[in-house]
Order: sequence, then structure tokens, then C-alpha cells
Amino acid sequence: MPATRDEITTFFKKDFPQTKCQILEVGNRSALVSHPVGQEELRPGGTVSGPTMMALADVALYVAILGEIGIVPLTVTTSLNINFLRRPKPSHEIRAQSRLLKLGKSLVVGEVFIYSGSDPDPIAHATATYSIPPQS
Amino acid sequence: MPATRDEITTFFKKDFPQTKCQILEVGNRSALVSHPVGQEELRPGGTVSGPTMMALADVALYVAILGEIGIVPLTVTTSLNINFLRRPKPSHEIRAQSRLLKLGKSLVVGEVFIYSGSDPDPIAHATATYSIPPQS
Amino acid sequence: MPATRDEITTFFKKDFPQTKCQILEVGNRSALVSHPVGQEELRPGGTVSGPTMMALADVALYVAILGEIGIVPLTVTTSLNINFLRRPKPSHEIRAQSRLLKLGKSLVVGEVFIYSGSDPDPIAHATATYSIPPQS
Amino acid sequence: MPATRDEITTFFKKDFPQTKCQILEVGNRSALVSHPVGQEELRPGGTVSGPTMMALADVALYVAILGEIGIVPLTVTTSLNINFLRRPKPSHEIRAQSRLLKLGKSLVVGEVFIYSGSDPDPIAHATATYSIPPQS
Repeated sequence: MPATRDEITTFFKKDFPQTKCQILEVGNRSALVSHPVGQEELRPGGTVSGPTMMALADVALYVAILGEIGIVPLTVTTSLNINFLRRPKPSHEIRAQSRLLKLGKSLVVGEVFIYSGSDPDPIAHATATYSIPPQS
Repeated sequence: MPATRDEITTFFKKDFPQTKCQILEVGNRSALVSHPVGQEELRPGGTVSGPTMMALADVALYVAILGEIGIVPLTVTTSLNINFLRRPKPSHEIRAQSRLLKLGKSLVVGEVFIYSGSDPDPIAHATATYSIPPQS
Repeated sequence: MPATRDEITTFFKKDFPQTKCQILEVGNRSALVSHPVGQEELRPGGTVSGPTMMALADVALYVAILGEIGIVPLTVTTSLNINFLRRPKPSHEIRAQSRLLKLGKSLVVGEVFIYSGSDPDPIAHATATYSIPPQS
Repeated sequence: MPATRDEITTFFKKDFPQTKCQILEVGNRSALVSHPVGQEELRPGGTVSGPTMMALADVALYVAILGEIGIVPLTVTTSLNINFLRRPKPSHEIRAQSRLLKLGKSLVVGEVFIYSGSDPDPIAHATATYSIPPQS
């Protein structure tokens, strides 16, 4: 049974209290998640740090998975590959649009595009795989 | 001209004040960097979050590069691939051992093994590529 | 100056005489390339071999690049990441639809979806990076 | 029950008759596999083609896995990531040294270094993941 945006947001607030990610949309094997950009996310030269983008990509795919299979906390990332494409603007929030490419019983594969502000060109692209524990 | 461990530590304190990474060793195209594990690094189930490991892998390679080419702040990560291998122990710090596989004029490729406490089996393995700006 | 489908096909026949890839479309930072599936491409269990799909992904991105920058033979692949998603049907040709995500002066990043026959679900997804030599 | 070098070589001759790979060593979660370089493996500029290296990396890890779990033909590659590091010499065979980083019940992760002739610097590095079917 799929989880709704509100259910996943509640789950995140309880289990990932430190995350700044905000879930904007979820459903249809995809999710849209935003992350504010402040002093903590910037690195020298005024660009958004790579780990901030990697964390956002991971969350956006995780949310898309929960939107399909429900709140299964033991779902874990098994691999992630990211390409950094363009310098984001330091003054804009970043958003991640994720999409599941394969939703198997035990293995999920998805891709994510990350955008800065309203720029239509992505600043990063990631793919990742997730392992879902056997359901009893 | 290579940078020493002290020079890189000073650079990080100034330019990456938010990082908790501690540089233990640098030189010979490699680096050893540790990261404490506390509430902020843990996720449900008591495991270390993936983004914490991705950030540590990125820093460990960045430090190895600065140890060869000196403090070149505009060196940027262009891609990163990570495989999560085992569950780390929640009560142990994690350490990353990096090694450069190719040190070209404009492109650097390296790999990193991440360990938990004194366990000899790695908890994660990453490869990443970096772009070095042209030197004037 | 971009290269046309005919120019790239002629270049491939001369410089890659062993490839079985057929260029169907090229332009707009993308390409569609097909590959027949015969005894040489199959592996035990009747599935298409991974290396066949990796080679096709690489060609489909290379063609999209040549379609933008012209016949630059020294363009080389610097990295490739592929996820195998579904078992292809052994009796169908495979097709790769590529798209460039970043077309920089020296670095190109793109993604590819690979399909089997008329099945709308991709059998594999790849991203790859390419280095373009400095133009004189 | 692990498979020996002779058993794996026999399996390859029967099930992968088209491969030119030669298994030199297998055991201890690793394998050494060589591949000749002739006209079919070269591309413009006299370098070894990327797909040749990707195929060799895949075989070297597959052999290391069979060396641990025995001849399990349905073991399949689920993802592969490769970085091309240096131009190989066109006149030398290439060799792949693989090593398993994780040997789980259903998921295996390994890395491979590829060398050209007697040059000690690797020409490519790959990581890949494999799915092992449930044993009955």
C-alpha cells in the first residue's frame, strides 16, 4: 500500500529530524523534493556542496519508493552514481525530480535530476539502487 | 607544490568550517580521514547515513589531491560512484582511506574505502573524478 | 559544425568496421541507434550480453556528440555507468536512445535508455562522460 | 562449493564460445584474466576500445564469483561503473585483476583493475554488482 506525501513527511520528521528536505510531490513512481541553500550548504566559490546534492538525490528517490511500497524503513541505498553538470546559483534553493526506472521485489533503480532555482538545465544527475527487505 | 596535513587542515577550518572530518594522514597520492558518528550521522535502525559516507569519501579524495597539487580551491568533483557494502556499527567513528588512480593535468580519478571502527572489512567503496582548473 | 547521420555512418564504416550498430536518428543533442541480436550477442539463458548493451550505449552517446561537434575522432569515453533493469527478449533487436545532459568545451555528459523490441520499459540505463580534445 | 580454474574455463568454452578471455588465476575472492588485442579490439588512434575493456572487467569479476560459489550460470550483472585512466598500448594484451569487496547471499560487489602489457599503472578501473539467484 503506497504512502501519501503527508505520511512520508510525518515519517521523515520523526525518523530523520535533521533533514531540511521538503517533499513537494510524490506518486506515479516519482517525487519532487526541495532543499534550502544557506551557509551550511555552500562551499568556497559560492557553489552548493556536492554532499548536499547527493543527500537530496538520495532522499528524492527514497521518497518515490515509499510512495509506491509504503513506509518500509529498512529500505537501504546500495549504490549511487552522480554527475555534477553545472554550477548552481548560491542564492537559490535546489530541487530534485526523481523517477523509478525499475521497481522489483527486492531491487529498485531510479534516476534523479537536480535543478537550481528556475533554471531549466539540470545542475546534477544521479542514478541509485535500493534494496527492499523481504516482506513477511 | 604539495600541501601538508597542517596546511590542508587550516584551509578546511577556514573554508569548510561546518565539516567534522579530521585529516589523519596525507601524502603519496593518498589520505586517511576520519569522521565522528553521533546522532546527526545516524539513521533509523542505528546505521550511519549514506550522505555522511558520501561526504567523507569526497573529502578524503579532495585531501589526497590537495596533498599533491597544493591548495587549489577551485578543484571540483565532477562525478562520484559509491557502493554501500556493510552496515557500520553505530557506536564507532568511520574512516576513509583514499588513493589517486590517475593524476592528470585537468582530470583526477581516485578510489576510497570506508571503514567502521577497527573492522577490517570496508563498509563502503567509492570512486570519484575531479576537475582541476588550468594553472596560470 | 554538426555532422549528419550519413556523415557519421560513413565515419563508422571506415573507422569502426566491426560494429553492427545502425544509426537511425541523430540531432538535437540525441541519437537513436539499433543493434541486431544474434548468436554472438546472447549469453546462457537466452539474454543479451551485458557488453553488447554497454557497447551500444557508448556508441549512442558518441553519435549524439558527433551530431553536435562534428567528426572529432579523438573524443574519448572517460567513464561509463550502467544499470541493467530487465531481461531483454532474445529474439528482438535492441535500440538505444541517447541524450546529452551537458555539452561543455572539454567534457560531455549524457544518458542512454536501451530498449528491447517494442517493449516500452527500458532494459538498461547508462550515463557516461566524454573528453573532447582542445580544438585548434 | 567453489569452482576451479579448469572448471570455469570449460564452462566458458561451452557457454561463452565467442569470448577471447583467458583465465590465468582464480581463488581467494579474486581472478586474473587476459584478453588479446588485435584489429577487432582497436579503435581509431590505435587505442583499445572501451567495450573490450568493459567486457573484460565483467568477465574477471564473474570468474572471481564462480571461483567462490561454483558454476551458477544465472548469476547476472546488475550494474557496472568504469573509469578509463590511460591509453593502452595497441601492441599489448590487456589483463584484468578482479577482487570481490562483498560476497553476500544475493548481492556481490567487486572491483577490477585493467593493465596493458607490463605497465604497472592501470589503464582502467571498474566496480560492478552481481545478483545471485536463490539456491534451492
